[in-house]
Amino acid sequence: MPFPDLVQPELGAYVSSVGMPDDFVQFWTSTIADARQAGGEVSIVQAQTTLTAVQSFDVTFPGYGGHPIKGWLILPTHHEGRLPLVAQYIGYGGGRGLAHEQLHWAASGFAYFRMDTRGQGSDWSVGETADPVGSTSSIPGFMTRGVLDKNDYYYRRLFTDAVRAIDALLGLDFVDPERIAVCGDSQGGGISLAVGGIDPRVKAVMPDVPFLCDFPRAVQTAVRDPYLEIVRFLAQHREKKAAVFETLNYFDCVNFARRSKAPALFSVALMDEVCPPSTVYGAFNAYAGEKTITEYEFNNHEGGQGYQERQQMTWLSRLFGVG
Amino acid sequence: MPFPDLVQPELGAYVSSVGMPDDFVQFWTSTIADARQAGGEVSIVQAQTTLTAVQSFDVTFPGYGGHPIKGWLILPTHHEGRLPLVAQYIGYGGGRGLAHEQLHWAASGFAYFRMDTRGQGSDWSVGETADPVGSTSSIPGFMTRGVLDKNDYYYRRLFTDAVRAIDALLGLDFVDPERIAVCGDSQGGGISLAVGGIDPRVKAVMPDVPFLCDFPRAVQTAVRDPYLEIVRFLAQHREKKAAVFETLNYFDCVNFARRSKAPALFSVALMDEVCPPSTVYGAFNAYAGEKTITEYEFNNHEGGQGYQERQQMTWLSRLFGVG
Amino acid sequence: MPFPDLVQPELGAYVSSVGMPDDFVQFWTSTIADARQAGGEVSIVQAQTTLTAVQSFDVTFPGYGGHPIKGWLILPTHHEGRLPLVAQYIGYGGGRGLAHEQLHWAASGFAYFRMDTRGQGSDWSVGETADPVGSTSSIPGFMTRGVLDKNDYYYRRLFTDAVRAIDALLGLDFVDPERIAVCGDSQGGGISLAVGGIDPRVKAVMPDVPFLCDFPRAVQTAVRDPYLEIVRFLAQHREKKAAVFETLNYFDCVNFARRSKAPALFSVALMDEVCPPSTVYGAFNAYAGEKTITEYEFNNHEGGQGYQERQQMTWLSRLFGVG
Amino acid sequence: MPFPDLVQPELGAYVSSVGMPDDFVQFWTSTIADARQAGGEVSIVQAQTTLTAVQSFDVTFPGYGGHPIKGWLILPTHHEGRLPLVAQYIGYGGGRGLAHEQLHWAASGFAYFRMDTRGQGSDWSVGETADPVGSTSSIPGFMTRGVLDKNDYYYRRLFTDAVRAIDALLGLDFVDPERIAVCGDSQGGGISLAVGGIDPRVKAVMPDVPFLCDFPRAVQTAVRDPYLEIVRFLAQHREKKAAVFETLNYFDCVNFARRSKAPALFSVALMDEVCPPSTVYGAFNAYAGEKTITEYEFNNHEGGQGYQERQQMTWLSRLFGVG
Amino acid sequence: MPFPDLVQPELGAYVSSVGMPDDFVQFWTSTIADARQAGGEVSIVQAQTTLTAVQSFDVTFPGYGGHPIKGWLILPTHHEGRLPLVAQYIGYGGGRGLAHEQLHWAASGFAYFRMDTRGQGSDWSVGETADPVGSTSSIPGFMTRGVLDKNDYYYRRLFTDAVRAIDALLGLDFVDPERIAVCGDSQGGGISLAVGGIDPRVKAVMPDVPFLCDFPRAVQTAVRDPYLEIVRFLAQHREKKAAVFETLNYFDCVNFARRSKAPALFSVALMDEVCPPSTVYGAFNAYAGEKTITEYEFNNHEGGQGYQERQQMTWLSRLFGVG
Amino acid sequence: MPFPDLVQPELGAYVSSVGMPDDFVQFWTSTIADARQAGGEVSIVQAQTTLTAVQSFDVTFPGYGGHPIKGWLILPTHHEGRLPLVAQYIGYGGGRGLAHEQLHWAASGFAYFRMDTRGQGSDWSVGETADPVGSTSSIPGFMTRGVLDKNDYYYRRLFTDAVRAIDALLGLDFVDPERIAVCGDSQGGGISLAVGGIDPRVKAVMPDVPFLCDFPRAVQTAVRDPYLEIVRFLAQHREKKAAVFETLNYFDCVNFARRSKAPALFSVALMDEVCPPSTVYGAFNAYAGEKTITEYEFNNHEGGQGYQERQQMTWLSRLFGVG
Repeated sequence: MPFPDLVQPELGAYVSSVGMPDDFVQFWTSTIADARQAGGEVSIVQAQTTLTAVQSFDVTFPGYGGHPIKGWLILPTHHEGRLPLVAQYIGYGGGRGLAHEQLHWAASGFAYFRMDTRGQGSDWSVGETADPVGSTSSIPGFMTRGVLDKNDYYYRRLFTDAVRAIDALLGLDFVDPERIAVCGDSQGGGISLAVGGIDPRVKAVMPDVPFLCDFPRAVQTAVRDPYLEIVRFLAQHREKKAAVFETLNYFDCVNFARRSKAPALFSVALMDEVCPPSTVYGAFNAYAGEKTITEYEFNNHEGGQGYQERQQMTWLSRLFGVG
Repeated sequence: MPFPDLVQPELGAYVSSVGMPDDFVQFWTSTIADARQAGGEVSIVQAQTTLTAVQSFDVTFPGYGGHPIKGWLILPTHHEGRLPLVAQYIGYGGGRGLAHEQLHWAASGFAYFRMDTRGQGSDWSVGETADPVGSTSSIPGFMTRGVLDKNDYYYRRLFTDAVRAIDALLGLDFVDPERIAVCGDSQGGGISLAVGGIDPRVKAVMPDVPFLCDFPRAVQTAVRDPYLEIVRFLAQHREKKAAVFETLNYFDCVNFARRSKAPALFSVALMDEVCPPSTVYGAFNAYAGEKTITEYEFNNHEGGQGYQERQQMTWLSRLFGVG
Repeated sequence: MPFPDLVQPELGAYVSSVGMPDDFVQFWTSTIADARQAGGEVSIVQAQTTLTAVQSFDVTFPGYGGHPIKGWLILPTHHEGRLPLVAQYIGYGGGRGLAHEQLHWAASGFAYFRMDTRGQGSDWSVGETADPVGSTSSIPGFMTRGVLDKNDYYYRRLFTDAVRAIDALLGLDFVDPERIAVCGDSQGGGISLAVGGIDPRVKAVMPDVPFLCDFPRAVQTAVRDPYLEIVRFLAQHREKKAAVFETLNYFDCVNFARRSKAPALFSVALMDEVCPPSTVYGAFNAYAGEKTITEYEFNNHEGGQGYQERQQMTWLSRLFGVG
Repeated sequence: MPFPDLVQPELGAYVSSVGMPDDFVQFWTSTIADARQAGGEVSIVQAQTTLTAVQSFDVTFPGYGGHPIKGWLILPTHHEGRLPLVAQYIGYGGGRGLAHEQLHWAASGFAYFRMDTRGQGSDWSVGETADPVGSTSSIPGFMTRGVLDKNDYYYRRLFTDAVRAIDALLGLDFVDPERIAVCGDSQGGGISLAVGGIDPRVKAVMPDVPFLCDFPRAVQTAVRDPYLEIVRFLAQHREKKAAVFETLNYFDCVNFARRSKAPALFSVALMDEVCPPSTVYGAFNAYAGEKTITEYEFNNHEGGQGYQERQQMTWLSRLFGVG
Repeated sequence: MPFPDLVQPELGAYVSSVGMPDDFVQFWTSTIADARQAGGEVSIVQAQTTLTAVQSFDVTFPGYGGHPIKGWLILPTHHEGRLPLVAQYIGYGGGRGLAHEQLHWAASGFAYFRMDTRGQGSDWSVGETADPVGSTSSIPGFMTRGVLDKNDYYYRRLFTDAVRAIDALLGLDFVDPERIAVCGDSQGGGISLAVGGIDPRVKAVMPDVPFLCDFPRAVQTAVRDPYLEIVRFLAQHREKKAAVFETLNYFDCVNFARRSKAPALFSVALMDEVCPPSTVYGAFNAYAGEKTITEYEFNNHEGGQGYQERQQMTWLSRLFGVG
Repeated sequence: MPFPDLVQPELGAYVSSVGMPDDFVQFWTSTIADARQAGGEVSIVQAQTTLTAVQSFDVTFPGYGGHPIKGWLILPTHHEGRLPLVAQYIGYGGGRGLAHEQLHWAASGFAYFRMDTRGQGSDWSVGETADPVGSTSSIPGFMTRGVLDKNDYYYRRLFTDAVRAIDALLGLDFVDPERIAVCGDSQGGGISLAVGGIDPRVKAVMPDVPFLCDFPRAVQTAVRDPYLEIVRFLAQHREKKAAVFETLNYFDCVNFARRSKAPALFSVALMDEVCPPSTVYGAFNAYAGEKTITEYEFNNHEGGQGYQERQQMTWLSRLFGVG
């Protein structure tokens, strides 16, 4: 199949040209500080399931603006001492799903949290979290909501939720604050990179076929949505290219990667039409911490699936001394 | 081509089963009253164009919640006395476009207003109006934004904007308050029907291939988006059918049609895969005022295009005594 | 969206016209007896995973012809007494996947077995089981392999494997022989119905959007593969319609349903283009045991997904007195 | 989105390899002379519309072979002195449409003429002009009609019509012969370039995303029709490549561009799958007159639409001293 | 697969509503007479091939207007006495192809003639025959060329060519004038029906999945081109439905079938999306001569292919006493 | 149209990197020897047809494992002396078809044999030959059947059948053993190359747009199936790339080409999305015998069709001194 993008060895040598805004750190520092300032309550209620070997909890915590954000927390029923934590973020359009889904981390001895994505959660898995903030004129979807101003951009709120999730989880006495990992695929991988770049409490980052990396290249190489929402936006708003990319620089995972220190396990698919491999390598090659990457040569955006989960479980168990 | 829906004579006999909520009138009365209460300023600024035979003005007026809504007002340069008004609403995803577009109404002696659609205006024509209100979990697009509660539903805000546009235009001394018409195709046709059903100042309604009619049938017959956004929403939110359709009843143009009195000129396309003809006839057959409909037998959702514009200009000029 | 098939109340009233061969019972009795005669060893080896709350085992058992068939057996780590068993069969093209996947049954206190599908296991999840038997001329896929003779048909081997899996599992001392359930979606649902119709040890059947039901109607209503493999076969082998449907009668789940006695929980999706709802109702309406069905009105072949899993876990836990 | 063709700076540097036939000028000189020789009447009849600020006329003039060609002439109702003229040619498959459409040039103080396209006018807008000449074996469409002989090729007739339109319009006393502009998009842009290259009376050329440029490259880069009609023709007529391209050289706008002197305002879309940007640059880079080009980076073949119209109106008003 | 049209027993009972023009016979009588009047030469030249068991000749004969029409005549090398003749007409878009193709009739002892289709012959097989007559505005393709006037319609010329081919072949001394058959699939089947309805010299008609039958139903049931060219034409020329169908009545094979007397062997495909089965039955049920039809239940427009050829060879050999 | 692959002059210079296994010759020598050892009967029965100028025979011969393989043998009715033989192999998915099809070789004085393809023969033409051997887990289709072991791979059996066909035909006294040619397109072209590389009795090879050439490049350049079956297999069986390509080396026609000595006439299509031209040139450039190639610049996988047949007939007649 014709590869949609660069192949090796070009991928390994690719350097993203994404610009780093001068006030990148300040923007995120003050954004997170404001969110913490907004406060809000954390609620944890056991979910009604038939599960016995693990237990599932319905969590509500305050995200950006103090808005209530949902998630599932799943714990092994039998455990001793503080648990290492894996927080997972969800791919584009999906939500946290149901309480009994995705049990492999909890069944392996981790506290596992799956965060809902504000406003999303209707497309391929179900969510229950609102995004109470509107937008200037945008393309259906989330990529161009508020994209003309970095303060209004949708992902400012979502990335902040993801950091605030860590805040909420670290407040639980059965979580080990020294063993915090984040993961996710596609959009969830991008959020993981963002959280890892913002929050030094995170000790391991596992982004799979991450989205939200190297926007300038992505809009020129992606074959399928959602990067193309940006293309369609600019096809109508023909005068707004500069404004759009000025905003996107604050949300580009290449920039978060440049500032990251936690060990990272990436994956990339060489036939990925949604998150072209050069955009993933744009972030990976820029990643400042210890890092490794698994290539899936014949996969499209589905990437490594269970194979990569298996690799993550082994890698993180070793890193965190589990099992 | 296989017709996607009913054909004649079934269409002419079709009666929609959409339910009328008991508090339908009250809901809309208080919604409009609240919006008027919210107040806001009207601004009218001449646009920079090369036009000389007509003149184009950039209008901002307060819509739902007092939010600023944009539109173009185009007037014939040479005119005497008060002008009849045609307000046009835009199809799904589009915006008001540019100042020099769509001149045929002004060039025929009408004051013509083309209202921007909040939040939309990025997909096939450009808009500049924000929708500052967020949403619970929804499908990309506008059909399911806030759909779980009639007070939060996106179209509550949009229909209110459309009525408030009439408020703003009636405040202009060159507009004849006795000769107000509304028109639009697809979503714009649906908005026209809603405004005609809410606002007795409207004296003519010209919906083309109208959208937002007979939701229960539409989700079962539409072949292409956007009605299918509702289907996709319910494919994930499997338990929320009742809540969704309870909300939609307040926004279904079948219900507005049942309460309308102004003369109406409809059009319908018998091969329409987006707004299936039975849904249009659901509204047309329910329409309580004087009415006529043009059928385009071999057209899909593009409907009558210039042919229907020509018919509208003739019909409305006669009705309003123009030319 | 235009429904691809019948809607209610026609679905509830639909009676399949599939013919029951005179020697149907005899065919299956001797087929299973022959397989048992062929013998073979059962092997159970613990899989290498990070799992602790549950344990996963790599099972090999003798299927049709004594051919070695793989599966994963997953057990709750902490349990007392004999465990109720859930055997799951896989959808078309997939395989048993990896050892750490699909943990919700084991985590709910069941012994859970996921059987590999001979020859398949390359399309959307991975398998490791060969089908050492060839075929007369056939369409790529499995629907027409050996379809000209009931003794050579692919599904004779696969259904037999599924019964032989029960044989193997009942030989384990931690399995409760009085609480055996089978489930699966699509092809897996069809296999469940077949096993439930052949094997009286099965005490609960949970077919989701089952495939392999009511072939004569399926080839006329399915919009997408794999039923259409049969259509394509007959489009070339124009003289073989009678031979093909004579074979298929022995494998049609309508016939298995007519002979079933275990309580059954079905699901069906009304927009299912792969397994049209009338074919599912063809089996459901014919089902001779106690039965209930969940309709997913706005879903295509994905059906109920996690919602249906949740319902199954509740239904079966109650039926088997678990939790 | 993967760009279908070259990007900058390659585009700016691209030089077309289209060959210039020795008798190119002579071919066109004698073609036009023959058409003038054939004679024919010009008829101008006011159209029945509701328009008042502008007036629309139904024009018939003699084109190639004296064949009657239709067009709409639209004038500002109030004007003094001779009017500058803009002649527009139509995109592939369309016709002149209806009398009230496309008013922005007349409303800006220009005499505006929209020429019908012989034989076309059925696909996306309506026309009324026959092409009474047949063809050797050809692909449905117009690209290969008579393509085996330059004298029989469809575009010989169409380009001649376009020059003869200028002849007809210059005969009107309210048209200023010193201020003649031509424009059009896609096929209309190609015709504009051809007319500008043949007829020195033309003082401004405004081709948008022009078609009919650099055929040898176009057949290798276009992703969608109509250039691919030529590919399909040669896929069957496998021995006729030389004959086809020998003909096309006489109609390639690269060659007209090489001979043009009027100022030109081009536009190009970098994601154009119909008229790939290198083919447009093939003509632009070869253009011998004063020239400028607007790039629409994120647009496909729709190009600049209203944005480009706005730019044209400003550019031409300045050039011709209007407004 | 969902059948695109009626199924049995509805098909067998279907009666077309196509209207028979009063002057239908007169129109065709005078059309053929005019063509004969126009005269022209027949030329027969042996083709350069490696064939030895059969011989292939390049034929040119005068068709409508005396225009030169091509065809291949293929004869068994060894034969005695006069040969029965099979004339085949070609499907839409194709041409007569090459001299060595389609040998089964000649190899079975028939004189076989494959007529080229004027203007076509570029799409899927190659032709060499021009259609020197132009058209009013039409959709790319042949269905709407001249469709506004029965005298100008493309198929008037093509059907006349097909009758004139018989004239030319009957002039050859090795052809048996009492054993003339016509055949073809799709468009070729329609031409066969037309020739059989016009020309009493034809003694056998073999239309496969015939096109050009029952236009009013065809435009409402066809899923794919070319009937849909008419739909697209009327989607733009919205006022011309009556004119179009008035013309089409003179070319509808339902009307030719009503006047036919020769024995006929039809075929029809029940999943045919191009020539829906009800349109074929519209002609078959109306056919006035002795008739039989083969149904291909699981085929789309490819129909019976070699199976039907085999049946034709057997049927015709018996009818004509060959072999 | 964008070329899917390399163009000239890169194609002419392209050198495949396919590795030659050390035991390649030994593998094939022993494979063929084993098949001959397995023995089996040849049966030749005249087919029931209307054919007189040629005669068609239903042949069954022993292939790999002695399995019965079908084919049609077609001979000119009138002939003297021994006939040169052309054996044709069939494209992917098809079968030998019917007895009266493809007569041009026999009608040109050749004994012509069309071999059925085991297991295939259901997709676009009909076959009657079983493949009695099963497979490990594979993608629907034939490309990955047994691909994990060279001894089990499907094409081992098919290539062996093709050599054994020559064995069977050489046993006929009317066949000239010094004039044996093989041909085929796509898969048939690949088989031809394999037979030519294995069997020195073959004196001419005519592969058209051959498949099964240069697998490593093919999986990276093919746009459409069947090479992509391998990609899909490896997308699930993520750890088996090495095993798959180790097997494929034994079946890659680049390797057969390197060992071939018979004169060869290739064809290639430059827009071929199924068998990209570089893969064909990979084999052609490696071909060790005398060779020529015809390029079809504007064709996709249909290639040269009748044009290439004509060229083959001329080329082979000259080479073998026929006619």
